[in-house]
Amino acid sequence: MKIVMDTTGGDKSPRANVEGALLARKKHPELSVIFTGDEETIRRILRENGAEEEGIEIVHAPGVITGGDKPTDAIRLKKDSSMIRAIRILREDPEVAALISTGATGALVAAATLRIGRLRGVRRPAFCPLLPTMQGGIVGVCDSGANMDILPGQLREFAAMGSAYLETVYGVENPRVALLNVGVESEKGDDLHKEGYRLLAGAPGINFVGNMESRDLLSGKYDLVVSDGFSGNVLIKATEGTALELLKKVKKDIYSRKKYMFGALFMKKMFLEEKEFMNYQNYGGSVLLGADKTVVKGHGSSDAAAVAVCVEQAWKMEKGGMNQKIEKTLAAIEEADRIGNEEKEKEKEHV
Amino acid sequence: MKIVMDTTGGDKSPRANVEGALLARKKHPELSVIFTGDEETIRRILRENGAEEEGIEIVHAPGVITGGDKPTDAIRLKKDSSMIRAIRILREDPEVAALISTGATGALVAAATLRIGRLRGVRRPAFCPLLPTMQGGIVGVCDSGANMDILPGQLREFAAMGSAYLETVYGVENPRVALLNVGVESEKGDDLHKEGYRLLAGAPGINFVGNMESRDLLSGKYDLVVSDGFSGNVLIKATEGTALELLKKVKKDIYSRKKYMFGALFMKKMFLEEKEFMNYQNYGGSVLLGADKTVVKGHGSSDAAAVAVCVEQAWKMEKGGMNQKIEKTLAAIEEADRIGNEEKEKEKEHV
Repeated sequence: MKIVMDTTGGDKSPRANVEGALLARKKHPELSVIFTGDEETIRRILRENGAEEEGIEIVHAPGVITGGDKPTDAIRLKKDSSMIRAIRILREDPEVAALISTGATGALVAAATLRIGRLRGVRRPAFCPLLPTMQGGIVGVCDSGANMDILPGQLREFAAMGSAYLETVYGVENPRVALLNVGVESEKGDDLHKEGYRLLAGAPGINFVGNMESRDLLSGKYDLVVSDGFSGNVLIKATEGTALELLKKVKKDIYSRKKYMFGALFMKKMFLEEKEFMNYQNYGGSVLLGADKTVVKGHGSSDAAAVAVCVEQAWKMEKGGMNQKIEKTLAAIEEADRIGNEEKEKEKEHV
Repeated sequence: MKIVMDTTGGDKSPRANVEGALLARKKHPELSVIFTGDEETIRRILRENGAEEEGIEIVHAPGVITGGDKPTDAIRLKKDSSMIRAIRILREDPEVAALISTGATGALVAAATLRIGRLRGVRRPAFCPLLPTMQGGIVGVCDSGANMDILPGQLREFAAMGSAYLETVYGVENPRVALLNVGVESEKGDDLHKEGYRLLAGAPGINFVGNMESRDLLSGKYDLVVSDGFSGNVLIKATEGTALELLKKVKKDIYSRKKYMFGALFMKKMFLEEKEFMNYQNYGGSVLLGADKTVVKGHGSSDAAAVAVCVEQAWKMEKGGMNQKIEKTLAAIEEADRIGNEEKEKEKEHV
């Protein structure tokens, strides 16, 4: 398997990206990597790590796209940037199966959507980051920000994509899929979510368990939450943000009294574990599902270990045949729609 | 001032509602109360509290609307329920300035929207609950669930209503208003939020500071977050839910090791304070803004003290002339729109 690694755009780039790929190669020696970025720097980091040159290529593309660049402008004007070159390689090189980037999310989504083909039955790719649950498991949120204005049918695509992802990469059998809504009753929400509920409830191959409220994201009752990209984004950022703010507050409060500081001495390890528990980097990158080649977006602050996890995700998606599963489910849904429509037509004729 | 108190529908109803009103009357002896609900039970609770009869009326309406009732059906079919009678009294009695309820939210919003008039310039009433910030202040979220499908112009109404509320009831001067979005840049989000941003940025009387991300809700950087009711609901429930789940997890983890249990002995008070900090009941009821009479929705689990806080909110809204402030701001916005449109017309003629 061959991947392309964009080495720019993260807080710890390019070192974390290069060393992360090398870590992944230790586990999977048959993995080949093309690095895009500043050739000289990449070569230096490789030398420092005593990396062999076999199975490694470098494409010199030193430009960096930042979060401040307008995505469509970035694609048009920064063709020599590391990210856009990586996208081009992913598109043009039939041997390259996946792209890993820790760079600007907006540009990556736009470039992947415009330049990489989509799976059969998928209108638009969607992000699916993971969070931990209180039961010790994980929960995915699809879409979490790639698609702002969506149609109800896309919620069904997100369900098919996220389910295949959880099954293939994490071994979750028959993932329990819930629709993010303002209440659990079936008739809740705006028009999008009412119609989305109806479509999900009748979709073959989707284990739809109903609506869920944002407060239950971490409860462990669901494996996958489907959502439009806007409210999915609000959901994950509110969840992560609250956890981090609260842990910061606890830390500050501990230092407010000697008695608390003394007690905390015995609980240091526990607090570190709580912090690690909510550290989303531990749950891998946010995969972009629905493109016909794999794209994994690592967090901007990823270190080498986090980048290696992103490579591992891409590896499992590819080796586990995830995209074929997605296309199979979507074909079954399409077929069910067709039969449903025919029956409706017949009924009309009958009347 | 006279209020109507719906005494059904909360977990601690009717006792909490009756005793809450009595608590409020201790602070404001000139407050008159009409109770709706089961007359005999209300009378018994009043007797037990040794309450004087002056300034207190009871309207016998024992029916209860639950969260399971479809709101529109509840209004049509449960006319003798305590909540719907309370709404009728609010509408028909010119002396009654406010309604307090701890009952079903959906039915309350629907009944208030359909039966109570709206302020000039307000299309639909909206909820504005409060949360604590890490700086020791509060932040409001408007709308948090009364309106699912909205127009961009309604975001401006939410801003005017929430600002007047924070100023009048909590003394927040010139509240900093942010738009809930998926990023801080001005061009972020779906069509609704892009247009909403443009309208908010030019609105007179609104201290608009830009887009905000859900992770920053508790940061103390904003006084008011405006949002469509769907994502506002996702925001507050995710924030409250995460905080509660995390505190539950910490509690469970403490009991997992003797060492932690020992340390926690010294920190008991701190953990109780963290729990109280995130207990939304401490921040009053969720007020419904934009109706021409005040409606305060207390949390379903409100005790007497929480109900008394709801009455206090209604008191301050009424005595502080909040609704007049809202109408003034909305009139200024309308005037600015008119001038803007005239200028556009003139430019067209000029070309």
